[in-house]
Amino acid sequence: MARVVQKYGGSSVATPEQIKKIARRVIDSYNDNNDVVVVISARAGETNRLIEMAEEMCPGQNGREYDLLISAGEQVSIGLLGLCITSMGYKVRTYLGWQVPIITDSLHSRASIEYINPTKINTDLALGTIVIVAGFQGIDGNGSITTLGRGGGDTSAVALAHALKADQCELYSDVEGIFTADPTVCSDAQKIGQISYDEMLELASEGARGVQIRAIEYAKKNNVTIHVRSSFTTATGTLITGEETVMEGVVVTGIVYDKNEAKIAVLGVPDKPGTAAKILTALADADISVDMIVQNVSHGGLADVTFSISKTDLDKAHQITNRIAAELQAREVIADRNISKVSIVGLGMKNHAGVAARMFAALAFNNINIQMISTSEIKVAVAIDEKYTELAVRVLHETFKVAV
Amino acid sequence: MARVVQKYGGSSVATPEQIKKIARRVIDSYNDNNDVVVVISARAGETNRLIEMAEEMCPGQNGREYDLLISAGEQVSIGLLGLCITSMGYKVRTYLGWQVPIITDSLHSRASIEYINPTKINTDLALGTIVIVAGFQGIDGNGSITTLGRGGGDTSAVALAHALKADQCELYSDVEGIFTADPTVCSDAQKIGQISYDEMLELASEGARGVQIRAIEYAKKNNVTIHVRSSFTTATGTLITGEETVMEGVVVTGIVYDKNEAKIAVLGVPDKPGTAAKILTALADADISVDMIVQNVSHGGLADVTFSISKTDLDKAHQITNRIAAELQAREVIADRNISKVSIVGLGMKNHAGVAARMFAALAFNNINIQMISTSEIKVAVAIDEKYTELAVRVLHETFKVAV
Repeated sequence: MARVVQKYGGSSVATPEQIKKIARRVIDSYNDNNDVVVVISARAGETNRLIEMAEEMCPGQNGREYDLLISAGEQVSIGLLGLCITSMGYKVRTYLGWQVPIITDSLHSRASIEYINPTKINTDLALGTIVIVAGFQGIDGNGSITTLGRGGGDTSAVALAHALKADQCELYSDVEGIFTADPTVCSDAQKIGQISYDEMLELASEGARGVQIRAIEYAKKNNVTIHVRSSFTTATGTLITGEETVMEGVVVTGIVYDKNEAKIAVLGVPDKPGTAAKILTALADADISVDMIVQNVSHGGLADVTFSISKTDLDKAHQITNRIAAELQAREVIADRNISKVSIVGLGMKNHAGVAARMFAALAFNNINIQMISTSEIKVAVAIDEKYTELAVRVLHETFKVAV
Repeated sequence: MARVVQKYGGSSVATPEQIKKIARRVIDSYNDNNDVVVVISARAGETNRLIEMAEEMCPGQNGREYDLLISAGEQVSIGLLGLCITSMGYKVRTYLGWQVPIITDSLHSRASIEYINPTKINTDLALGTIVIVAGFQGIDGNGSITTLGRGGGDTSAVALAHALKADQCELYSDVEGIFTADPTVCSDAQKIGQISYDEMLELASEGARGVQIRAIEYAKKNNVTIHVRSSFTTATGTLITGEETVMEGVVVTGIVYDKNEAKIAVLGVPDKPGTAAKILTALADADISVDMIVQNVSHGGLADVTFSISKTDLDKAHQITNRIAAELQAREVIADRNISKVSIVGLGMKNHAGVAARMFAALAFNNINIQMISTSEIKVAVAIDEKYTELAVRVLHETFKVAV
């Protein structure tokens, strides 16, 4: 007998057939003698549809009324799944965020969970009821509906698992788990059985799919075991836990890539303090996150500042950078849409010197030029020409003999 | 300075353009120095879409999860109207049923309002905020969302007007008010300036559009003045009040017709007690309401039972009646889809004898045969061949010189 929180994404509840499939999966787990709490998101596309309507009505809003509107999507999906499980003959109880309640702060459209009262759900579970909770939403101290923003659904699930003292939080999606590399790119990639929060945080930041970063952070803070698995198979996926056991000789746990990167280089700017800050501030004001940044050594009083951003932000960022570059009297601004980022991640790096050097050598040996670098204690990421992405992943997977 | 509750139906908020129109109308009223509370329904078709999804997921449900699902429609419409009014520069606050709260009993999908706490809304109004409330929904003592069923939106508005001590409750739709007869049928029909609750109840029961019966009953019980008016014009509509002033010489206040009627006659049933009851019970069990009923005098121990029902229920009712008729060994069952009901309504009837006789004579003079009759203190309704509907309305309007 275990207690599990299962979270299904919007694509799992898009059609009546899919809802029925999820319902059967939930019931299977219940019949295996588990307490089951299900967290679901709005049906695929529904929240975007609501956001579009809101934008049409009143561009740029994200306050109380906006959250009330965009949280209607989960209400529909929990209602439908609730009815479906009822029709299959099981006791069910659905909860919107405010009904649990899931208390958040008042930062509308990007609220943080402050407290979840587990009393009602604990009572339901004790009575053998399957509980379904709307993800992504909560209620603040004023009684207003709040939404958690990007990654909110996964975070709701992890926070509920914590509040309910669940044995694990299962995050279902279309990926079977976390792999040592993308299996469609690297044929000898393997599913990772267990991974630490820190490694998973790095992998997710660098492009791995399957879990939202906020949810991993919440899980790490509260020591919630996450199980990333596929809603299409019953195979065990990847466990994300607090255990930091490094296998003998394993340096790199996973290799990830992200093709949604672009680069802007500002060439020939006067090399004085505050130059890079000026550009980055302007981008931050426009809500554009910068990933990697390189400022080269000055030659003749002029420096080059290069940074990477999302491909989707490139046009806007280019415009802004052009404006600031003109103010700074830079020589030239070059934008490059064709880059990608490849990263190696592993706790083992902590104890192994020269990992980055081995990585760079392997890439150089295959004529893959490195354009930017960023590192952490357990990660090395490089920006390269996009067309070499798959080659780089395979080369690095082979080089480090990534093992599970 | 007055306090008004304005209720707009789902067709008024179907498109962004319509929402903007409503927003301007609300703001106009606010700028006329009124406290304004707006009650809106789900956008046209939305609740039906949700009901269809619920039916597909789990046919025949109407409990807690069902109400949670189908109440998502109003959430979207109040959110959109709220954002729209915000974008026009006015302070606004939206409330779902549970946020007000509007407390109801626990009869899901047909709940009754028990209490509305006016505190939050009174505070908002005192601060010059425009308040928008989701109609059709409430919360029960267990914290579950409830819906009020058919006519729930109008009832929410009237109940809020009562709780907030509003001067009037404006019900907006596509009709300009209540008319002495359908103006598309009777060219000299006039808009009624003021009408009593009892007359309006009879008119609405007999086919008048513009207000739901439950809302009129609530208004009568709590003495709330209703103003039925069009969202397309600024003209004054019809006031429904408790005043029962009968104009000198005015017998009939309004004439209404209902083409959604059908007739079933069960001929040659043994005339013993309980025969009609048997048929009517079977229909009631199938949720079919019977309107008029006639049982003729027995000849030779055999009687005929005739009753009218909605056209939409005819096929189902015919089947059921056939079954019971066979059990009762009736001679024959005849169904007739082509009937309609024409009714005259007026407080003046109380003081005038012979009103029904004048009505029947006028119809007979025009060769319109009366198939069934039902009467109340202030109403006479007759079932006739559907093709004579318009003729009958015009003849009766002329006969009684219906005046405003």
